[in-house]
Amino acid sequence: MNATLLRDIELIDSLESGLHQKDFLLTWEKQEGDLRTILHVASVLKQMRDQHISPRVFDSGLAVSNFRDKSTRTRFSFASASNMLGLAVQDLDEEKSQISHGETVRETAAMISFLTDFIGIRDDMYLGEGNKYMREIAASLDESFAEGILPVRPGVINLQCDMDHPTQSLADLMHLQKIYGSLEALRGKKFVMSWAYSPSYGKPLSVPQGIIALMTRFGMDVQLAYPEGYELIPDVLEKAELFAKQSGGSFRVSHDMQEAMQDAEIVYPKSWAPYHIMEKRTDLLKTGDKAGLDALEEECLAKNAQHVDWEYGVAHKAATLNGNARYMHCLPADISGISCPKGEVEADVFEASRLETYQEAGYKPYIIAAMMICNRFANPAALFKKLIERNRPRVSHV
Amino acid sequence: MNATLLRDIELIDSLESGLHQKDFLLTWEKQEGDLRTILHVASVLKQMRDQHISPRVFDSGLAVSNFRDKSTRTRFSFASASNMLGLAVQDLDEEKSQISHGETVRETAAMISFLTDFIGIRDDMYLGEGNKYMREIAASLDESFAEGILPVRPGVINLQCDMDHPTQSLADLMHLQKIYGSLEALRGKKFVMSWAYSPSYGKPLSVPQGIIALMTRFGMDVQLAYPEGYELIPDVLEKAELFAKQSGGSFRVSHDMQEAMQDAEIVYPKSWAPYHIMEKRTDLLKTGDKAGLDALEEECLAKNAQHVDWEYGVAHKAATLNGNARYMHCLPADISGISCPKGEVEADVFEASRLETYQEAGYKPYIIAAMMICNRFANPAALFKKLIERNRPRVSHV
Amino acid sequence: MNATLLRDIELIDSLESGLHQKDFLLTWEKQEGDLRTILHVASVLKQMRDQHISPRVFDSGLAVSNFRDKSTRTRFSFASASNMLGLAVQDLDEEKSQISHGETVRETAAMISFLTDFIGIRDDMYLGEGNKYMREIAASLDESFAEGILPVRPGVINLQCDMDHPTQSLADLMHLQKIYGSLEALRGKKFVMSWAYSPSYGKPLSVPQGIIALMTRFGMDVQLAYPEGYELIPDVLEKAELFAKQSGGSFRVSHDMQEAMQDAEIVYPKSWAPYHIMEKRTDLLKTGDKAGLDALEEECLAKNAQHVDWEYGVAHKAATLNGNARYMHCLPADISGISCPKGEVEADVFEASRLETYQEAGYKPYIIAAMMICNRFANPAALFKKLIERNRPRVSHV
Repeated sequence: MNATLLRDIELIDSLESGLHQKDFLLTWEKQEGDLRTILHVASVLKQMRDQHISPRVFDSGLAVSNFRDKSTRTRFSFASASNMLGLAVQDLDEEKSQISHGETVRETAAMISFLTDFIGIRDDMYLGEGNKYMREIAASLDESFAEGILPVRPGVINLQCDMDHPTQSLADLMHLQKIYGSLEALRGKKFVMSWAYSPSYGKPLSVPQGIIALMTRFGMDVQLAYPEGYELIPDVLEKAELFAKQSGGSFRVSHDMQEAMQDAEIVYPKSWAPYHIMEKRTDLLKTGDKAGLDALEEECLAKNAQHVDWEYGVAHKAATLNGNARYMHCLPADISGISCPKGEVEADVFEASRLETYQEAGYKPYIIAAMMICNRFANPAALFKKLIERNRPRVSHV
Repeated sequence: MNATLLRDIELIDSLESGLHQKDFLLTWEKQEGDLRTILHVASVLKQMRDQHISPRVFDSGLAVSNFRDKSTRTRFSFASASNMLGLAVQDLDEEKSQISHGETVRETAAMISFLTDFIGIRDDMYLGEGNKYMREIAASLDESFAEGILPVRPGVINLQCDMDHPTQSLADLMHLQKIYGSLEALRGKKFVMSWAYSPSYGKPLSVPQGIIALMTRFGMDVQLAYPEGYELIPDVLEKAELFAKQSGGSFRVSHDMQEAMQDAEIVYPKSWAPYHIMEKRTDLLKTGDKAGLDALEEECLAKNAQHVDWEYGVAHKAATLNGNARYMHCLPADISGISCPKGEVEADVFEASRLETYQEAGYKPYIIAAMMICNRFANPAALFKKLIERNRPRVSHV
Repeated sequence: MNATLLRDIELIDSLESGLHQKDFLLTWEKQEGDLRTILHVASVLKQMRDQHISPRVFDSGLAVSNFRDKSTRTRFSFASASNMLGLAVQDLDEEKSQISHGETVRETAAMISFLTDFIGIRDDMYLGEGNKYMREIAASLDESFAEGILPVRPGVINLQCDMDHPTQSLADLMHLQKIYGSLEALRGKKFVMSWAYSPSYGKPLSVPQGIIALMTRFGMDVQLAYPEGYELIPDVLEKAELFAKQSGGSFRVSHDMQEAMQDAEIVYPKSWAPYHIMEKRTDLLKTGDKAGLDALEEECLAKNAQHVDWEYGVAHKAATLNGNARYMHCLPADISGISCPKGEVEADVFEASRLETYQEAGYKPYIIAAMMICNRFANPAALFKKLIERNRPRVSHV
């Protein structure tokens, strides 16, 4: 067992964590020890994979995915995490299921769970709905487990909701931890989460909200930048302020991209739709007001178009620390001249960091697997010692 | 090995069964010993799961599912059963396959089976077609296996056809067996399979037919109730009559829901479409008569609307034994005020039994896995002794 | 270990192969030793399966499939091959992924590959595009692997492109090898790859091209027959000519089906669309010229209709060697009177060889698995010795 692996396992052992048998829905509901545990468990899993040691802990079992919106990276991350641990993915495709026949949420939850270990859900489209749906599923699982209907209580994992995107923000944090060597090394760094121009409409709030509520917990100087009118949910801003105070960092809001970027060490320019628009959209969707929805989209795109200067470019980058801030993105980015005529980032600026954004994305499978391990095993450190001793190769040696 | 597990294994050993290397298409083609064997094998599998012992018997292999109609619980049950035994599910999605390019049934059967252990099929939409399709698949598999084209003959499992729904009816029977302690304890109990009002059109006949043809085999007093004009297939009624006579139970038909419910111990109120309508619909579909189909649907819904009083409610329940009959349903039910304005069952009556219906549904994965085990292993009792001795944990211990 | 298995393993050991860590995109890029290795590795895998010995080499890992066109047999073959070796299939469904949000090919390649061992791609619709797409994916994987973003470099397997269909042509060759006893036994046999009439439009060129470029490598007298105007890509014909010369076989072109069939020992009558039409179609698709596409389809079908006499039938068969040439097809065939009023082959002629075409198709899973084994293991012979010594049963014994 090499030194880094050993150190990670010892750190896991030393941390307080309340993750056992708990769902993972919002990072801001979790304790700092929980978050640190996830990162170190993910790190051990990644090292085991890199060293060709199988971390398989399930001989059989299902991991159900329920994607209510499109996904590539999260879908494959969930599949990879499940597979790594020995679970088979079964997708709940609502078009092919009885859900279109009037099944209630709590009934669906039970029906997909008789031999299921985890349910991963993406439901990010409607403000006030996605996270609520996850909690309805969770409450039904509690009930069915309490009644002896389910042999185990499947863990629920938020794969992006209307409020948070914890597997993304934690993968982003793990990326920073690996680059700078530790979470402690992030202390005092200026991190800018900035709105960026996009020609598309209705991008979720979960990433910027997830980022400001997580990065403020580790002593960074977090700045949120957006044109006036592009507000996030006020509750989440309060969380960010509180966390910054507690962690010895800071949290500020700016409405000037160029000014915000001044001396930034890490930047995350990414589009989103204002929360009051998202609220309005949800209301219109509920009443089925098609004309209203079309009008709202038109209004919104017109508003976006007033802020084409919020395209992260050479001039912005020049203002950052040493003119070379670390660029982050959850991908796919709207890259000017590549994915759209004008978008979130200039092509050359993106290209300079493109492979780093892939590296950033690559942590997500391990974050999800870590959530699974911590939900199921009270003592992940002991588990890892046993798995490393078992030393089962992932691929047969010759 | 605990006592219940041991007793189930001994019972399996003592029963005559002809299930080895046979498809499971209709319960009424099977001997009583076959059905009892399925129940006890399912029971052993459930106990192993509850005791965290892996029943995995396949190191690799495919279980193909072919759902020609929507499904949640059967889809997940098939996936769970396959996974529990070590098989990977591969769905035959006819839209994505060459079937839209004119492939014949017998060719498809061979093409999906080169390394396949089981094929589960749902085809319940067209009277006279679903079961026939399964037999065409089976005949092709016989031919390809005989010619040495397939290394094993995949077993075919009926996941609901136009005539029967054996994984459902056997899960229902297992539920009763577990509640009352044994199949013998069911003797003499009054079981009412009743039509119920639904605002939807064209629900399959497979559940009521499957129920009356199975429950009559174990000495129950089975009553079938429906408004005149909602007949089931006459052949299946003959089966039910014959089985009731053989088992020392009874089988009667009533056209009055309230009267049928009198002193009932178990009730199963569930909508279906009359078989002659289903026949007519199949004919219209074959000739592509869109106008005829629309007219038939309208006529049918109008006819349903004449029987809104066949909503199972407080008054019906009050007439049952001790005013407290056990309520069963294959789910999802049309619940008045929840899934539709008025449907098969009053909301309060359903709610009182809701969790029991989940329990009932929970046996299906084990029934399907039992069908797989019995198809593949000539001596399931000996297999289980070996698996329990192997004692492989489903999830790693720490 | 029986004699045939032992001989195959020794042959693998004796052959020069450059397959390790290489993608499999076109047979004509591979050396003869590579192709022979694939066949013998596939043969060992088939024998292990037939003898119930598990060839599982992966404890976990993903095999990603990306089908950009419909498929039954290749989809199931890829699933079977992956499952046999211990990999879970994860399908990249481009409608459900972020690809519709403007993701670039190279980004997608990385995003689906963090814990992926193989990517199988079908992209056969547009001339000049399918193989190019595979190479773009491959180049991105190279880049991400070199940068340490991916822990292993996933192998790319061509499951049919616009130019070649190597898993099909190698399965076809394996079928001939098994029937005639060896590749050497094929020397001097007359093999006719013939265009055949079809009422459908736009069948890909990959099968006829793959066949002539492969069958010419083993000393056969290969004849390509088609009505004038139905040309294949000239480059591939040059390959076929060169290979025929190198292998001591021959390659000729004929425009008369009856004449071509004279004394043929093996025939492969199959429709395709002329390559210049496919080029035109690709251009029209790129410019989105809907009217042009409709006109092209109409023109093409009219042209096909001039060649209904290219239906392989009794008279053609009578002219072949002993009036009994071996009939091959990649399936599904357009069978006159069965899948269409008039098509590629007369019903009786097809029926006489139907089960043999299933046998032919049955080699594909093993060919794909062999490509995986040879990509991942530098010394497949040593691997097999170890696996046979391990002797893990695929299904539990009782």
